[in-house]
Amino acid sequence: MNLTHIEHIGMAVKSIAEASKYYTEILGLECYATETVEEQKVRTAFFRIGETKIELLEATSADSPIAKFIEKKGEGVHHIAFATKNIADALREAGDKGVRLIDKVPRNGAEGMNIGFLHPKSAFGVLTEFCSPQKISDNS
Amino acid sequence: MNLTHIEHIGMAVKSIAEASKYYTEILGLECYATETVEEQKVRTAFFRIGETKIELLEATSADSPIAKFIEKKGEGVHHIAFATKNIADALREAGDKGVRLIDKVPRNGAEGMNIGFLHPKSAFGVLTEFCSPQKISDNS
Repeated sequence: MNLTHIEHIGMAVKSIAEASKYYTEILGLECYATETVEEQKVRTAFFRIGETKIELLEATSADSPIAKFIEKKGEGVHHIAFATKNIADALREAGDKGVRLIDKVPRNGAEGMNIGFLHPKSAFGVLTEFCSPQKISDNS
Repeated sequence: MNLTHIEHIGMAVKSIAEASKYYTEILGLECYATETVEEQKVRTAFFRIGETKIELLEATSADSPIAKFIEKKGEGVHHIAFATKNIADALREAGDKGVRLIDKVPRNGAEGMNIGFLHPKSAFGVLTEFCSPQKISDNS
């Protein structure tokens, strides 16, 4: 499985503009990147803290998964992402051990990462992501 | 403020025995400590990943804050803890900037840490903890 660290924590927010003020002015972190992922209907903003990133997630439309999440649960932690050296193997291993997978194979995420999600029902309520900077075609 | 890294992620679970299997057998992490904090009515189990810990939290009684959290929201991420070099200063600074504090001064937490919580209403839905291994009397 080879999980190395918490790569990022995804936070669902209504407004990146508002939430960014908290992360910069109160917590003293720096926003080093923003990115819109149109196919996920999400706008993101990234802050580094140690080896981990805070990823703010704002919906770009009312039918975005983030809009639905906030409607149901309110703003807050959306997912936890674990870094792994080989994401294809990590997803396969979890699936083989009976974990319910949202992604059976890796797909492209923000920041050029390859990502795959485990279903929260198999992870004690935590929407869990594996991610890797590795190219999908590179299994070395 | 001087936040250095994500010290731990607290996960509310119904059963540490059950959830530990997921963290050890699926994710490949090792449980290195367990601790019961009677005044918080909580049993904890700790797993290391990189510079961060996963802290599983199980209620020891029906009126535990963890039992109430699970009743309302289900199992999942309960809080995010940021390590700071000077927790008293960090809490004071956040309070001075208008953040609603659950703890105005540090108190004792698990693992001999000094801890203090910010209210999730001031942190965009995230129950946020500051923590430090520093003794409360030591402001150096």
